[in-house]
Amino acid sequence: MQQAIDLSIQNVANGGGPFGAVIVRDGKVVATGVNRVTANNDPTAHAEVSAIRAACQKEGSFKLEGCTIYTSCEPCPMCLSAIYWAGLSRICFANTKQDAENIKFGDKFIYEEIERPISKRTIPTEAFMREEALQAFRDWEAKSDKVEY
Amino acid sequence: MQQAIDLSIQNVANGGGPFGAVIVRDGKVVATGVNRVTANNDPTAHAEVSAIRAACQKEGSFKLEGCTIYTSCEPCPMCLSAIYWAGLSRICFANTKQDAENIKFGDKFIYEEIERPISKRTIPTEAFMREEALQAFRDWEAKSDKVEY
Repeated sequence: MQQAIDLSIQNVANGGGPFGAVIVRDGKVVATGVNRVTANNDPTAHAEVSAIRAACQKEGSFKLEGCTIYTSCEPCPMCLSAIYWAGLSRICFANTKQDAENIKFGDKFIYEEIERPISKRTIPTEAFMREEALQAFRDWEAKSDKVEY
Repeated sequence: MQQAIDLSIQNVANGGGPFGAVIVRDGKVVATGVNRVTANNDPTAHAEVSAIRAACQKEGSFKLEGCTIYTSCEPCPMCLSAIYWAGLSRICFANTKQDAENIKFGDKFIYEEIERPISKRTIPTEAFMREEALQAFRDWEAKSDKVEY
């Protein structure tokens, strides 16, 4: 955790957001990540997502079972979901989402939006052309050599 | 939407998951994305996240206000959160999350986990070293030339 915190502190000096993350397997660091949203023009480049992407490249896998993620701040819903998709086995965090809210990095609005029915969300959302789109799902089901996850 | 669907169908043939997305501004395509999770060993490479990253690179911005995302399937919580972080103005989808669940691409477990208190989640989660971590947030607040978002 100290390394994740050190990264978060260094990243502020390096023009990034105050967030760092470290992914560890069996006591060894697999990969690290810092927030490069504004530096890289990538709204998905949160510390946790960056660390997950780097760790998966390092391990040559899209799964990180058995790994722990140490993140300097409680994950936002995007990062938390990425952690679930990656199948990480343990999450440790230091700053809380309220601490992040206090410095205007709040993600409360996203947690609230996710829980709302689609019709009540602030981003207008419409559904159509389901019948046409189902073709891809039918093709997927019919494919014999697919890689499932 | 037809283009997003076409991408999702082509992507199955190309060894990816059955998902495609297109980001449009003022009737013009800014960028597209497909699911390359298994192909690229990147659990965050969903169609929507891939399209957002590409569109931000194209526009040289970490925000996509004024853009619409057309996605062949209802966004998972990771992608939905990324859409909020990117500030997209409209979401259109075709297949539903239940359709995805039916072909074993379900994200219901993630929606459920997000709503649970930390102590009840399936991935064990601990919080510690908050005091040390707050240093990065104090540095951020003290920084005069920071780029906020």
